[in-house]
Amino acid sequence: MMLQVIALCQAPFLLDDPNVGLVFPADTIARAKHYLSLTSGGLGAYSDSRGIPGIRKEVAEFIERRDGYPSDPELIFLTDGASKGVMQILNAIIRSDRDGILVPVPQYPLYSATISLLGGSLVPYYLEETANWGLDIVNLRQSVAQARSQGKTVRAMVIINPGNPTGQCLSEANLKEVLKFCYENNLVLLGDEVYQQNIYQDERPFISARKVLMDMGGPISKELQLVSFHTVSKGYWGECGQRGGYFEMTNVSPKTVEEIYKVASISLSPNVPGQIFLGLMVSPPKPGDISYERFVRESKGVLESLRRRAQIMTDGFNSCRNVVCNFTEGAMYSFPQIRLPPKAIEAAKKAGKVPDVFYCLKLLEATGISTVPGSGFGQKDGVFHLRTTILPAEEDMPAIMASFKKFNDDFMEQYEDYRGYSRM
Amino acid sequence: MMLQVIALCQAPFLLDDPNVGLVFPADTIARAKHYLSLTSGGLGAYSDSRGIPGIRKEVAEFIERRDGYPSDPELIFLTDGASKGVMQILNAIIRSDRDGILVPVPQYPLYSATISLLGGSLVPYYLEETANWGLDIVNLRQSVAQARSQGKTVRAMVIINPGNPTGQCLSEANLKEVLKFCYENNLVLLGDEVYQQNIYQDERPFISARKVLMDMGGPISKELQLVSFHTVSKGYWGECGQRGGYFEMTNVSPKTVEEIYKVASISLSPNVPGQIFLGLMVSPPKPGDISYERFVRESKGVLESLRRRAQIMTDGFNSCRNVVCNFTEGAMYSFPQIRLPPKAIEAAKKAGKVPDVFYCLKLLEATGISTVPGSGFGQKDGVFHLRTTILPAEEDMPAIMASFKKFNDDFMEQYEDYRGYSRM
Repeated sequence: MMLQVIALCQAPFLLDDPNVGLVFPADTIARAKHYLSLTSGGLGAYSDSRGIPGIRKEVAEFIERRDGYPSDPELIFLTDGASKGVMQILNAIIRSDRDGILVPVPQYPLYSATISLLGGSLVPYYLEETANWGLDIVNLRQSVAQARSQGKTVRAMVIINPGNPTGQCLSEANLKEVLKFCYENNLVLLGDEVYQQNIYQDERPFISARKVLMDMGGPISKELQLVSFHTVSKGYWGECGQRGGYFEMTNVSPKTVEEIYKVASISLSPNVPGQIFLGLMVSPPKPGDISYERFVRESKGVLESLRRRAQIMTDGFNSCRNVVCNFTEGAMYSFPQIRLPPKAIEAAKKAGKVPDVFYCLKLLEATGISTVPGSGFGQKDGVFHLRTTILPAEEDMPAIMASFKKFNDDFMEQYEDYRGYSRM
Repeated sequence: MMLQVIALCQAPFLLDDPNVGLVFPADTIARAKHYLSLTSGGLGAYSDSRGIPGIRKEVAEFIERRDGYPSDPELIFLTDGASKGVMQILNAIIRSDRDGILVPVPQYPLYSATISLLGGSLVPYYLEETANWGLDIVNLRQSVAQARSQGKTVRAMVIINPGNPTGQCLSEANLKEVLKFCYENNLVLLGDEVYQQNIYQDERPFISARKVLMDMGGPISKELQLVSFHTVSKGYWGECGQRGGYFEMTNVSPKTVEEIYKVASISLSPNVPGQIFLGLMVSPPKPGDISYERFVRESKGVLESLRRRAQIMTDGFNSCRNVVCNFTEGAMYSFPQIRLPPKAIEAAKKAGKVPDVFYCLKLLEATGISTVPGSGFGQKDGVFHLRTTILPAEEDMPAIMASFKKFNDDFMEQYEDYRGYSRM
């Protein structure tokens, strides 16, 4: 339905075609008319640089339904995907290389690359692999102390929840600690919550940083600066080519909001089709709509299959020699640790490759399975991972994992010399 | 047709609908299938960060047809509108506030805002209003000399052709001078050519900086670094909400191209619908296609009407007291000079307003006509302008200009005291 609405919005004159009802269902036509009424009659004109007001209102209503607290459309900016929003906000925070941003390690490269592009300093805090990639406040304090001892002003902290590439879901208690920590240290919290729909267990449902903050009440809930990000690229939609996203600002001063608006205006407006996608995402079909049952069936189907795939993949990795993998609680990735034997590390060195790159290339050559070496995400010295998505078709998954296991176990056999193997 | 193709690409399953042929013509369906074959079957997946290879190839073919010289798709990057491309390139050029970029004055604020955001230095060169906003190489030399005397390294020059807000079209001879100047001074030339389809006279047809450079031959044509920009936002399409654009690099080193690619990758990919729009723009219907005649009729109709509107507007402004206006040779704007009497300047000062802002606000209040004060684009001290588009409907234009004339002439009467009027 989402795609059909966009199709009609892209070519609004189709609505006057006498045959349009033969191709498009009635609720789709009604939704298309609704979104066209929010624009100047088509998707071809610039919108307000913050996004179409009517869609920002729909986003605010979505946030209110989700969190139970009202949200102000004036503090919501639509963006060309969440990445562009993150870049806008980091741009507003970073003044020089003396400004530090706390970023989880491992993390996907958006943050490291943007901080480096903007000339700031990345202050890493390590996630605890042995605690299912949990966020330890003690680590966080040490990271800040170390950055300060180097003369940095730590100005903001990033959390990615659910985690990418680590897949963990933060608990409410953990989020509270983080919020308190940010408040005590006068940090802006950036909540990268793009995977909020992608949850594969029931113990730790997604809870937004904003809801926890509002629940806490008191001065912190009125003072802590929080910026939350969301997108049409993930969830059961996965419409990443459309580049639709938003950020919502909480407790950010009107003067700062004004400056961010001014900078957003330089590139005129986010793409309008992506804005309509976002509107459709935050206001999906309701009970009673023609498309409602199909929407529920399809979205549930996608998420349940992803949940099964997360399980197949984690179990598959854990059945392999020298591979340990935390369960993917959320997001779309598996990030197994590969315990490379010293001889494999030596062989990699000889080949002029980083050990995990060496492993991933061998895997690619032997099986055609393409993965990303963990070193692209940051990790502790001497610890190796790979990242893969849980997105291959469910029916292909067992064969893929079998093929991986065969490669991995052969690889380990080849390089573990205490087993006496030598294959030359 | 463009919009129908996009509609089908957005919802590709419509192609399987038995009634699709009742709503969409056959060549539209064929084009949609073509673009879907260049993607992974829909617009919902990220593309290469440089844009879809098949569309970059179509852009290269368009450039070759236009200029008569081959173009390399590997040196063409698709962007979310031309503005984003300009920002990417300036980001690659500016290292610090000691790096200067030559920018025409008046100019639309993309360049001034981006240079300021990136921490570079804008080096202005004034366009000559009395020479129909021509570009004078003597001015250019003076600007560079002055910037150098202030310790700046001038690294690039921007030309906007046709001009925004000034509407002038650069002649081939003038472009040659500019290219030679850039070569002698080791400057990268940024050619903002987004209005290349919007030409309203026959004396100076659009000619791309790249064609002139290639025509020159010799070392300059192999060494001068040129980046040219284009978009779907202007021309007879005007699809600015779609955010589609490209830049083409000439004589830029592979290492630099690689770095620009890396930075582009941070935000993953330009929006895919905008890329398809660009493909459609650079490869419009051909003779023999079902939609060809309609395309020719409509695109010609739009441009001819714009040409008439440019004339009505220029003539209208020039019929007003104390207003002089160069003819809009190209682009979409009229930029009349308003000769404000000293008393009007005084009154503005009293009201706490910049004089041209004062005039434009009075105009808005009296007539509802919204214009942009010239000070937003930069101008010489004591000289005042306003910018307006030539886009109002042609049939409304005479009434708009009459309303403007009445306001302006009354305003001038009120503030020109040598005429002895005083209205209190």
